[in-house]
Amino acid sequence: MPATFKAAVLEEFRTPIAVREFPLLQSVEPAGVLVRVQMAGVCGTDVHLWKGQLSIPRPNILGHETVGIIEQCGEALQHDWHGLPLRKGDRITWSSSLACGHCFYCKEKRQPTRCLNRKAYGISYNCNEPPHCSGGYAEFIYLRPGTAIFKLDDPLSTERVIGAGCALVTAIHGIERLGMNWGDVVVIQGAGPVGLAALAVALGHGASRVILIGGPEARLKTARRFGAAECLDIEALPSAEKRIQRVRELTRGYGADVVIECVGSPEVVPEAIEMCRDGAKLLVLGHYGDAGEVSINPHHITRKQLQLQGSWGSEPRHMAQALEFLRDRGDHFPFEELVTHRFSLERAMEAIETTQRWQSTKSVVVP
Amino acid sequence: MPATFKAAVLEEFRTPIAVREFPLLQSVEPAGVLVRVQMAGVCGTDVHLWKGQLSIPRPNILGHETVGIIEQCGEALQHDWHGLPLRKGDRITWSSSLACGHCFYCKEKRQPTRCLNRKAYGISYNCNEPPHCSGGYAEFIYLRPGTAIFKLDDPLSTERVIGAGCALVTAIHGIERLGMNWGDVVVIQGAGPVGLAALAVALGHGASRVILIGGPEARLKTARRFGAAECLDIEALPSAEKRIQRVRELTRGYGADVVIECVGSPEVVPEAIEMCRDGAKLLVLGHYGDAGEVSINPHHITRKQLQLQGSWGSEPRHMAQALEFLRDRGDHFPFEELVTHRFSLERAMEAIETTQRWQSTKSVVVP
Amino acid sequence: MPATFKAAVLEEFRTPIAVREFPLLQSVEPAGVLVRVQMAGVCGTDVHLWKGQLSIPRPNILGHETVGIIEQCGEALQHDWHGLPLRKGDRITWSSSLACGHCFYCKEKRQPTRCLNRKAYGISYNCNEPPHCSGGYAEFIYLRPGTAIFKLDDPLSTERVIGAGCALVTAIHGIERLGMNWGDVVVIQGAGPVGLAALAVALGHGASRVILIGGPEARLKTARRFGAAECLDIEALPSAEKRIQRVRELTRGYGADVVIECVGSPEVVPEAIEMCRDGAKLLVLGHYGDAGEVSINPHHITRKQLQLQGSWGSEPRHMAQALEFLRDRGDHFPFEELVTHRFSLERAMEAIETTQRWQSTKSVVVP
Amino acid sequence: MPATFKAAVLEEFRTPIAVREFPLLQSVEPAGVLVRVQMAGVCGTDVHLWKGQLSIPRPNILGHETVGIIEQCGEALQHDWHGLPLRKGDRITWSSSLACGHCFYCKEKRQPTRCLNRKAYGISYNCNEPPHCSGGYAEFIYLRPGTAIFKLDDPLSTERVIGAGCALVTAIHGIERLGMNWGDVVVIQGAGPVGLAALAVALGHGASRVILIGGPEARLKTARRFGAAECLDIEALPSAEKRIQRVRELTRGYGADVVIECVGSPEVVPEAIEMCRDGAKLLVLGHYGDAGEVSINPHHITRKQLQLQGSWGSEPRHMAQALEFLRDRGDHFPFEELVTHRFSLERAMEAIETTQRWQSTKSVVVP
Repeated sequence: MPATFKAAVLEEFRTPIAVREFPLLQSVEPAGVLVRVQMAGVCGTDVHLWKGQLSIPRPNILGHETVGIIEQCGEALQHDWHGLPLRKGDRITWSSSLACGHCFYCKEKRQPTRCLNRKAYGISYNCNEPPHCSGGYAEFIYLRPGTAIFKLDDPLSTERVIGAGCALVTAIHGIERLGMNWGDVVVIQGAGPVGLAALAVALGHGASRVILIGGPEARLKTARRFGAAECLDIEALPSAEKRIQRVRELTRGYGADVVIECVGSPEVVPEAIEMCRDGAKLLVLGHYGDAGEVSINPHHITRKQLQLQGSWGSEPRHMAQALEFLRDRGDHFPFEELVTHRFSLERAMEAIETTQRWQSTKSVVVP
Repeated sequence: MPATFKAAVLEEFRTPIAVREFPLLQSVEPAGVLVRVQMAGVCGTDVHLWKGQLSIPRPNILGHETVGIIEQCGEALQHDWHGLPLRKGDRITWSSSLACGHCFYCKEKRQPTRCLNRKAYGISYNCNEPPHCSGGYAEFIYLRPGTAIFKLDDPLSTERVIGAGCALVTAIHGIERLGMNWGDVVVIQGAGPVGLAALAVALGHGASRVILIGGPEARLKTARRFGAAECLDIEALPSAEKRIQRVRELTRGYGADVVIECVGSPEVVPEAIEMCRDGAKLLVLGHYGDAGEVSINPHHITRKQLQLQGSWGSEPRHMAQALEFLRDRGDHFPFEELVTHRFSLERAMEAIETTQRWQSTKSVVVP
Repeated sequence: MPATFKAAVLEEFRTPIAVREFPLLQSVEPAGVLVRVQMAGVCGTDVHLWKGQLSIPRPNILGHETVGIIEQCGEALQHDWHGLPLRKGDRITWSSSLACGHCFYCKEKRQPTRCLNRKAYGISYNCNEPPHCSGGYAEFIYLRPGTAIFKLDDPLSTERVIGAGCALVTAIHGIERLGMNWGDVVVIQGAGPVGLAALAVALGHGASRVILIGGPEARLKTARRFGAAECLDIEALPSAEKRIQRVRELTRGYGADVVIECVGSPEVVPEAIEMCRDGAKLLVLGHYGDAGEVSINPHHITRKQLQLQGSWGSEPRHMAQALEFLRDRGDHFPFEELVTHRFSLERAMEAIETTQRWQSTKSVVVP
Repeated sequence: MPATFKAAVLEEFRTPIAVREFPLLQSVEPAGVLVRVQMAGVCGTDVHLWKGQLSIPRPNILGHETVGIIEQCGEALQHDWHGLPLRKGDRITWSSSLACGHCFYCKEKRQPTRCLNRKAYGISYNCNEPPHCSGGYAEFIYLRPGTAIFKLDDPLSTERVIGAGCALVTAIHGIERLGMNWGDVVVIQGAGPVGLAALAVALGHGASRVILIGGPEARLKTARRFGAAECLDIEALPSAEKRIQRVRELTRGYGADVVIECVGSPEVVPEAIEMCRDGAKLLVLGHYGDAGEVSINPHHITRKQLQLQGSWGSEPRHMAQALEFLRDRGDHFPFEELVTHRFSLERAMEAIETTQRWQSTKSVVVP
């Protein structure tokens, strides 16, 4: 095992990410595991983190969507989340966040995504502190005891897992929380990874028709291949009013049964409300960053008897569902095709910029 | 049967309501029924209607909460909603609105409260058109075929039924739509009839504790008698920030499981969001009038994974539930005590003004 | 319009069905419609009816799955269930049963499938009484006011609609009532039309894997084409114990999340209970006939915390969902291929026998 | 701390329970706690255990409903389940069973009551093995790391907690799993502790009327005080047919919305099915012991579209709800009055016999 490892480090918000070397821990805790990173996804949230829109410790090794190979496995860590045996050399992925299991939200409200002591790889750790290797943009990452690990002992490709990334588990959790009905007509706002994942999951739940709104054209092509019945290109329809009108035309004049917001800009929320039929459900899924306020008329919520639903992060069982979905339905939803750009550790800054500029559907870092 | 009847008529918005005389229909349709009004409630919505905040036909006989005595019963109308026999002299109440049963919302979405052809007594009819007697502020009211009629053949008092009024069915429908959990800690914003009804219904559903926010003191007294664990007087706590802080103190710092908005002012909605624990539900129940927009941060909906739920009106089955609740639990929730002010037809304008000025808990018109 | 029509008539239980001629009604009620039958499906229930396992009036024209062409349309019947215009020459299908809309189950419990006054074409009418044409095994059928009619104005084939038949709406209603979770592992007992329909609907709801148990091989082939992950041939596995063991092997030793009984023999119910994981759901969908009792151990229900769920018939909205499903997903689930045998009216008895002997997957009558 | 402790020991099934002395552990694990028993309830299950109807290790110290005082608290055990500080001298109660948190049912199905590695105090431990003190019928009990402990730092009496016992958490879990609707008419079979607890919980959930069937009269008196609308004495109505008829008379001829079986005899299940209205829910809650099979007609499940639901044990969050309910609503439901008989450790055998013979409503052991 090498004595050191390289990682792409965010030293300070809005400054270039650069490669640094850290000492590599030489032995793991009984229930810990050291992993050699194979591929790490660049999530839209990484862009927000780089900009400083969430307060995180620095320096920080970003990267919370990761696949790697076990380098050293604690002797007490015998099995993955499903009970499959784990050993050195196994390819694995994992839930990026750990809930404490003991707080008000974990225990009393069974809502571990809002755990009061939640920690996430690639987000919550200062990499100056041991064990240093706390994020995916690195040669190694150390998984602490309690991490939900999933063994990938089958042909499911690393590209497909990273192409789906945290967008897929986010969509699965969100739609579970929302509660879709079979046959619902669904509008999805946004054609980024979360929008495309929501499209796949909505179809998987039996949506009768999905109308996706977004761009650019390359992403809409993917949306059509995934099974979107209609794609509204926001470049062709830059006016919210026209988009609302088009959605109504496509829904017998009533609006959609379900609208899933995957954009993150406040102004699309009132637009979504207009796209709802009376009694519809609106999943506010894209607002991981605080992008400010927007004017909403509560009378519309009362009169249209709408349900607005938020959802944050995901639990390990959603990762289990995501991997099963990728295995079973991956031919219909080839998430690996989302991976359009690959970068070395040294070019991690570029990876983030490419994501920020919508040049890639999904950028990845390959250490 | 008299040849004419008197009614209090809204000729034009924001002008004094005055008594007029109309010809009384002399024979009813086979499934219609003519009712001599015993008591009509003054709803907060009547104030909004008088002000012109909803576009309704004029002239209009207001009054959509009514109990009366059958004067003439169509020969095809043999039974009330529950199948009890109906005849002249029976005391009855009824659902104020009629759904068509055939439209998209009635049939396909099973959501008759949003029926595209919905009509409501005391709201939707121009009283210059026959059969004229279309609202509760009158000596007579004519119930068209299809009205859901409920016979009151027991000691359940007219005062209790009108004291509960449309507030109770509104609360029952809203809480059904929201879906409360047993043992929930509930905050209710507003101490008017809807707030007090929501208090009773929340307790009836097994809320462990209800914190009610409102005023004036007379209403808070009723709230305490109904079983509110805490009442926050908005005069003593005029600052939203302080109220939020107090709710948090009363909820172990987390916020409430459920917040029910029964105020109708947009600015209380962001306040309600602050009073929610993560994962809470917020019922936006009070916005029957369009009182404008308010700034909301969608990031809070996503991050706190909130559910905001609207609810509009009610169905006949909620009236059935309301009457059963008043019969079974009326001793705990003496809604008759809400009726603090009584007015003759001639003083209907005063009745509305008393309601508007919060001088009464509930005003009624006794023709 | 002809003066008479021919129909295949069940004069008495367990006696040969024969063709008779009846006078054809010459004018319809304002909301009625006379339909020239194009194709009528032979349902497993028709076999039970012929045997006298349900008490129905006689003589009786069977046939409750029908597509036909409007011959005469009442002037008040302007639109189909969705609001599409109706006129002579339109191809239509319809819900075979009518609920009264007024009884305890229709109104108070919103459960019209248990309407106290329910009537069904092909089942509830004595065909000696006018208008005589009350079932699908006939040249004409008369649809009474209130029938939920669905216009087929598109390429959706009559064969596909009849191939799906009442099995599909039965499965849709049953699974709605059961409440499946996305990703559930499902066992289906039975490979007849209801089993195959349940397979399609379970997959449509996002079942991760469906194991179907039944026979003969021709039906299992269809099941595989529909997407069954595993088919257990009851001829190869005649022992319940072995089938239970096989299901456990296929479910990591735990049993299935959902079991759907589509057989109708009591002894498969305890077998289904054994195939359930703890906390599973078991839909008892196949017991339309009274086939007697079976021994069940209530301790297993308590200890395994099972949910056993029954479901009866369907509502018009399930027919709407079924037709939408056949339009959207018919390429994946080619129900038209179930129609393996066609018979003239004169050979209706043969059609029933072929169904009874499992020689056909689906027999149809083409008048 | 004494060197030994006394306990009432079940050496072998169906042999007299006798007091033995064991060495008392002198220091606890960091997250363990040694408790001096104040009171232990005698549960109906203890009778089944004594008879050998469940296979448990022997010798065994029974007693799984216990309140005690902390004698020694592990230094790592700082807080109770709610986060309240714990120290020597605190009065506490706890969930009697521990789930592993790692198995298929704990993690993947979030159903810890069916944990594959579940252990329960008073049931799962051989008391010959250290730490010996594994059940409530003893002077001391040792709570292993992971036990869900609830501090009783308020006036809530030990009698009330033990009077409610595991019956209350069982009823809370069962009704949660069943899903009651507000205003349901409920039938409860059985007037033992589970039946009385189900009565309280059903009323707490907003049942409009509860009909309780059981005996003897002393228990029915309690049921009436708790709020049962009707009590059917099984001595006065020994025929199932008459009881069914009476329930129908009390439910407008239709049967109940919900039936809760709290008896444990298989023959009451088909009786319950007859008491269900179409579309009703039947909670099979009383079959903790295997009391054999009963004949059921699956056609009734299909045709009446019933839901039969099992439920097993409870989770710590149900204990939290139970204690809150006892605090909030204990004046309405004075469970302390169920404690009719008290026994010393030496008379534990008598305590069980009194329970078995229905002489007590609730017997308790006071060491």
